[in-house]
Amino acid sequence: MNNLSAELSEATINQVREELQSKTVRATSPEMEEILYKPISVLDHGFIRAIDYMGTDASIVQAARVSYGAGTRKIQEDRGLINYLMRHHHTTPFEMCEIKLHIKMPIFVARQWMRHRTASLNEHSARYSVLSSEFYIPEVSQLAKQSDINKQGKSSAEFDRNHANEILKILEQSSHNAYERYSHMLDDLSLTRELARTILPISIYTEMYWKIDLHNLMHFLKLRADSHAQYEIRCYANVILEILKKWLPITYEAFVNYQKEATSLSKKNRELIKRMLKGEKITQENSELSKGEWLEFTAIFDIKD
Amino acid sequence: MNNLSAELSEATINQVREELQSKTVRATSPEMEEILYKPISVLDHGFIRAIDYMGTDASIVQAARVSYGAGTRKIQEDRGLINYLMRHHHTTPFEMCEIKLHIKMPIFVARQWMRHRTASLNEHSARYSVLSSEFYIPEVSQLAKQSDINKQGKSSAEFDRNHANEILKILEQSSHNAYERYSHMLDDLSLTRELARTILPISIYTEMYWKIDLHNLMHFLKLRADSHAQYEIRCYANVILEILKKWLPITYEAFVNYQKEATSLSKKNRELIKRMLKGEKITQENSELSKGEWLEFTAIFDIKD
Amino acid sequence: MNNLSAELSEATINQVREELQSKTVRATSPEMEEILYKPISVLDHGFIRAIDYMGTDASIVQAARVSYGAGTRKIQEDRGLINYLMRHHHTTPFEMCEIKLHIKMPIFVARQWMRHRTASLNEHSARYSVLSSEFYIPEVSQLAKQSDINKQGKSSAEFDRNHANEILKILEQSSHNAYERYSHMLDDLSLTRELARTILPISIYTEMYWKIDLHNLMHFLKLRADSHAQYEIRCYANVILEILKKWLPITYEAFVNYQKEATSLSKKNRELIKRMLKGEKITQENSELSKGEWLEFTAIFDIKD
Amino acid sequence: MNNLSAELSEATINQVREELQSKTVRATSPEMEEILYKPISVLDHGFIRAIDYMGTDASIVQAARVSYGAGTRKIQEDRGLINYLMRHHHTTPFEMCEIKLHIKMPIFVARQWMRHRTASLNEHSARYSVLSSEFYIPEVSQLAKQSDINKQGKSSAEFDRNHANEILKILEQSSHNAYERYSHMLDDLSLTRELARTILPISIYTEMYWKIDLHNLMHFLKLRADSHAQYEIRCYANVILEILKKWLPITYEAFVNYQKEATSLSKKNRELIKRMLKGEKITQENSELSKGEWLEFTAIFDIKD
Repeated sequence: MNNLSAELSEATINQVREELQSKTVRATSPEMEEILYKPISVLDHGFIRAIDYMGTDASIVQAARVSYGAGTRKIQEDRGLINYLMRHHHTTPFEMCEIKLHIKMPIFVARQWMRHRTASLNEHSARYSVLSSEFYIPEVSQLAKQSDINKQGKSSAEFDRNHANEILKILEQSSHNAYERYSHMLDDLSLTRELARTILPISIYTEMYWKIDLHNLMHFLKLRADSHAQYEIRCYANVILEILKKWLPITYEAFVNYQKEATSLSKKNRELIKRMLKGEKITQENSELSKGEWLEFTAIFDIKD
Repeated sequence: MNNLSAELSEATINQVREELQSKTVRATSPEMEEILYKPISVLDHGFIRAIDYMGTDASIVQAARVSYGAGTRKIQEDRGLINYLMRHHHTTPFEMCEIKLHIKMPIFVARQWMRHRTASLNEHSARYSVLSSEFYIPEVSQLAKQSDINKQGKSSAEFDRNHANEILKILEQSSHNAYERYSHMLDDLSLTRELARTILPISIYTEMYWKIDLHNLMHFLKLRADSHAQYEIRCYANVILEILKKWLPITYEAFVNYQKEATSLSKKNRELIKRMLKGEKITQENSELSKGEWLEFTAIFDIKD
Repeated sequence: MNNLSAELSEATINQVREELQSKTVRATSPEMEEILYKPISVLDHGFIRAIDYMGTDASIVQAARVSYGAGTRKIQEDRGLINYLMRHHHTTPFEMCEIKLHIKMPIFVARQWMRHRTASLNEHSARYSVLSSEFYIPEVSQLAKQSDINKQGKSSAEFDRNHANEILKILEQSSHNAYERYSHMLDDLSLTRELARTILPISIYTEMYWKIDLHNLMHFLKLRADSHAQYEIRCYANVILEILKKWLPITYEAFVNYQKEATSLSKKNRELIKRMLKGEKITQENSELSKGEWLEFTAIFDIKD
Repeated sequence: MNNLSAELSEATINQVREELQSKTVRATSPEMEEILYKPISVLDHGFIRAIDYMGTDASIVQAARVSYGAGTRKIQEDRGLINYLMRHHHTTPFEMCEIKLHIKMPIFVARQWMRHRTASLNEHSARYSVLSSEFYIPEVSQLAKQSDINKQGKSSAEFDRNHANEILKILEQSSHNAYERYSHMLDDLSLTRELARTILPISIYTEMYWKIDLHNLMHFLKLRADSHAQYEIRCYANVILEILKKWLPITYEAFVNYQKEATSLSKKNRELIKRMLKGEKITQENSELSKGEWLEFTAIFDIKD
């Protein structure tokens, strides 16, 4: 791990790419081939790099045509069929593509990541190896006051420079102290790695190989590229969105329109829209929605009271 | 479906292989490349063909080294590490490979197949398309009286030729009748496909794309290439074993030794072996095993009472 | 299996219920307790009966409060919190409830059922037991012409009585013939059960124990109680909806409003609604939707061109 | 969280148990009922308590009889059938039982725990709530030098008291410092909880509700009650073993004999045993095993060179 930066240097990667170059008759995504093995930076020390993939937009179409046979005959075009599948939540053909990523991220991000269970994962183990001294320290623009209203997120109120610097100093000091003690217990006191690492904070970086099918990847992206997700995991999700765009350009577009940027409209909300389209004036009072739901509803459609 | 035989002709497949040929920097398995898209016959009308794959033996090693880091340093060689992983049931690196197959099989085989849930699948739907008139009729050598002892398997007493021919005639007649009625209800009576197909027997052939990771594939093979599995699904499992051998030769060998041909030895059985190795004479009476378990135990080690 | 009707008689079930009656400190759903073990008829020979359950509406709330802690303090009421979770797709607390059902259904329904992989299942095996002579024969009202437009479903055109009777006669005759040959091969020709059963049609009834968590159950219901699902599996889904209503009345209501009867609105569709609410006149031409998508969009909101 | 100790007091739990007491016709495990909701201590601040369960030993038998029908008739007794299922890896009937636990454990234990993906989980979120100041500090007996041989485990050489005390002081000091900074950033600097918590070490305690089926629970126990698992998670696994024994006494015994304490014997190893039982003298040289494998083999059967 210590020579990871060497392993990931442009020269080494180009060499790996050259050595591995060979012929294949498998479905191949040309834009994806261009970026394989090349790390894309995320946060202060993290990265994502695509290691392997299976399938292209055409593979989704092919699997759908096996299922639906005559039923897909009318939709001649790949784009039309992929849009149809996405719109109608016919999810199984999207499972026919697979991607493998190498990701470096702070442990608290990894903890959110691993909640997505339908995926394969090999994470670097601190029982077997010594961790490097790399900790996530947020940028000043990301520091913010805990909102009293939104229990989950942060308020829009950012800190002044002095205040922010005080926080950054604590974060850095704390990481530094923890790592010094970790090294001391390992090197001078011969404590086992599996116990010494318990004092390391969840801001320390870890690494993993992560493999997931396209259907589950899109579910991950829907949740983790969303504004309710914590900023740090969102940075990773946004990079994966860019990778997806190169890998499967048609699916990417369909995903954004029909899933990522789509809205789930409850039965009650749909009935309200119908009434409004017929010219009825709807307020919270005659909507039968709770206050919270009314706020959500009006926000979706830019409705002003 | 109707022109499937054309689609799967040698000429068409060679053309597809030529058109798809391109360069890749992904891990590539040369022997696997040779067989991609080419159907391998199974039973009377079935086949399996590999459509795509992700990963090679080296990909498993790579994923393991991410996890265990320093812990794998001593095992220099890929074969040694793969054997170690297989022997110690470190299963996650094996999830890092994936395979996609196109399979044609009778419905009763598909029903056993689909019990393996950790896989992706697109099956041809008889709601959307008309099925072809292809039914599984066993070979004479597979017909046998229901064993009185083993409720699951076949007795060794095979049938005489006349007896067998009578059965074959019924199987063929029955399929033929069902298909005629199916066509009649569709073509002359305009019944919906989804209802007309309900009279078709489970010996009719269906098709699917099936994608699974290597760990779950090996679990499938352990169960379905086993002598307790029904003969017909075993034929398919054996073909997949041959594909696995080409795809991942090192893993294949480790799988056969440590998983497929391995035996689970209960605590009690292990203690018996220890006593026997020390020279003690063990019989069912002093073994504390039930009769059934004693028979299984002695069979494993060719022990004669 | 042959004495299943005896096993499922009211007297036997009442006896089982009496024998099993005991005290528990587990979360208990009173209305659900009333119906445990009692079969509810579906189709001509099928049934569903609830065998066991884990959790109540309160269990979902309890699990959510573990996760969100202070974040759920403001939502005092169980109903409010369950609505919130359902609306925002916070799905994990719904996994904390579990149900086990005993279901008898035709094989073609079982085949659709088993596509839902995140569930546990023990199905009656025709390799080990002889199947009973029970086949699904649709009611006349369900017979319909294959639609030329909707490749999947049926047209609204029903058959006249004579036409329908001709179809029914074929369905009955075909089942009868198949079962006679099956019995003959088993009883007179001593063919193995595993081969004899291959001539049985997919309309024959099978049985299973099926266990699934609430989150996955709701996903099943969303897909299978939908108008695009085949009529026969929809009948089963509708019975399960009734069971859900008794088991978890608050969750049931939230599910119907926010999931089952909800609509997914694509980004483009949402923008159209916004423009319409601002008074703009939208037609297919200025909507940038394909014809198919425009029809779907206008159907959702009863929009007339 | 702050009043968790109050919530888990004997008086409160007895009150909860009394309030929830009701009649049920569900399968009930009397010994399991006795311990529901009662926390069992693990490590210095952790606990496990059973919250709910579904099924008993009889439920496994019932599900197996649905599948195998006539095939299970000869095995009259529940114990015999459960032993048979366990011995032959017929795993699906074991999925028919389910358990829900409330667990408090350090984050580094939770991280190992969550690698078991086929389970449901609601973990306390540090984005929504402030964490309590509870950190895992090992007992002196658990401190040990990093073994040079076994990269994963602990050397037998324990530390002298002074050395151990120095380590304990560092662990305590480090936790204390981290928590003080965390509180300071939250209370005095108003930093968001989601960022403030990033400096907390992985020794801090977290809590979760965890629900899993019996088959996957046994897999968890096989791996995590094993001597290769880290000591801390083993403590939890051992408590769950005790719970399993109360819940499903017959299954527990079968599990210990056929799974937990069983050995997987490779094809090569089995052949060696056969040769040894026939009186042949086997050494590493004529065994064709690698040195590592030979050591493992001889250790299993107490074979001395």
